[in-house]
Amino acid sequence: MYKEIPLISLQRMPVYLNYLKSMPASEKFVSSGHIAEALGLGEVLVRKDLAYTAAVGRPRVGYVTEELISAIEEFLCFNGKRHAVIVGYGAVGKAILDYGGFGYYGIEIVAAFDSDADKLGQSPSGKPVYDVADAEAQIARLNAKLAIICVPAQAAQGVADMLVRCGVKAILSFAPATLKTPEGVEVRQIDVAANLAILSSSIK
Amino acid sequence: MYKEIPLISLQRMPVYLNYLKSMPASEKFVSSGHIAEALGLGEVLVRKDLAYTAAVGRPRVGYVTEELISAIEEFLCFNGKRHAVIVGYGAVGKAILDYGGFGYYGIEIVAAFDSDADKLGQSPSGKPVYDVADAEAQIARLNAKLAIICVPAQAAQGVADMLVRCGVKAILSFAPATLKTPEGVEVRQIDVAANLAILSSSIK
Repeated sequence: MYKEIPLISLQRMPVYLNYLKSMPASEKFVSSGHIAEALGLGEVLVRKDLAYTAAVGRPRVGYVTEELISAIEEFLCFNGKRHAVIVGYGAVGKAILDYGGFGYYGIEIVAAFDSDADKLGQSPSGKPVYDVADAEAQIARLNAKLAIICVPAQAAQGVADMLVRCGVKAILSFAPATLKTPEGVEVRQIDVAANLAILSSSIK
Repeated sequence: MYKEIPLISLQRMPVYLNYLKSMPASEKFVSSGHIAEALGLGEVLVRKDLAYTAAVGRPRVGYVTEELISAIEEFLCFNGKRHAVIVGYGAVGKAILDYGGFGYYGIEIVAAFDSDADKLGQSPSGKPVYDVADAEAQIARLNAKLAIICVPAQAAQGVADMLVRCGVKAILSFAPATLKTPEGVEVRQIDVAANLAILSSSIK
């Protein structure tokens, strides 16, 4: 359960994991100070992040490296494996369907849906792309409660409504549109252009 | 200058713009209440958002539709046109290079860079993909102060360092890595997997 952890701390967990796994096997112990220095972060911040996990550091020695790795992995997969689906197999949907970075968080993208018959079949990594007309049956079969909307803005609300009917409980949307969903269905939006605009405005 | 506007408000600006432009030309006036209802938002929120622009609503009548459109467009392009480049022409870089949604914010993605000779040439929409070895000269020529990092996590810091040397002042990164940049160079990170993980944890 990540509820209490800020996004920014959660984002660092895979970074810690990568670093710890890249350490030589001979390094049985690792301190928060060592991790902080290697990753260019503050030591207090690293210690706070790691406190979200069940790992317990020892004075002077730090963490047992293997224990810390397991603790972070357990923390990230707290909810067990979850299946997610993508609706919209355009450029964004393609990039996400075959992206390998979700496994860290115990999430597997199991299928994509599109309305364009030419796009149906398999992704380069072998994941299925189904007809969106079959979404209801497939989403139930796949037991996916998590979905990613990668359709144009004007189609996004219709897709969200369909996903809610299919029992999806949380939606990540790349469409620059405000989505209405019933209570109990969480929505997060990633607006790449708006993020870039905020950055652009920071330039003197 | 978006400095004072929250990201969530900024993200709604293109939504307002889309809606206003879709209205019949006969609708010379539009009220915040009308916009709020059409988009399923609160009226106070809409009024607050629009107050970031130079548009002035009139009691009972609302905004002159055309004036409001111009005010939002001016607000979004406050800093004038800006060029941005992409480093990493993989699946994510491809999705972004040809995405048309940046124009709203006065941002043009002018080129991508990659180290893989097979990827160089042109994108489907005709934008150039250059060798990253030429980045320094090209970024100066293109006068790009804004860059998007779409390379794997382990290559991201090297790319960020290179971009800083090229005079880039703001970086949007899709790599799940903590980037160090000198003062005066802003970084924002979009971590799709972490966002999905937060959503996943919200499911009961």
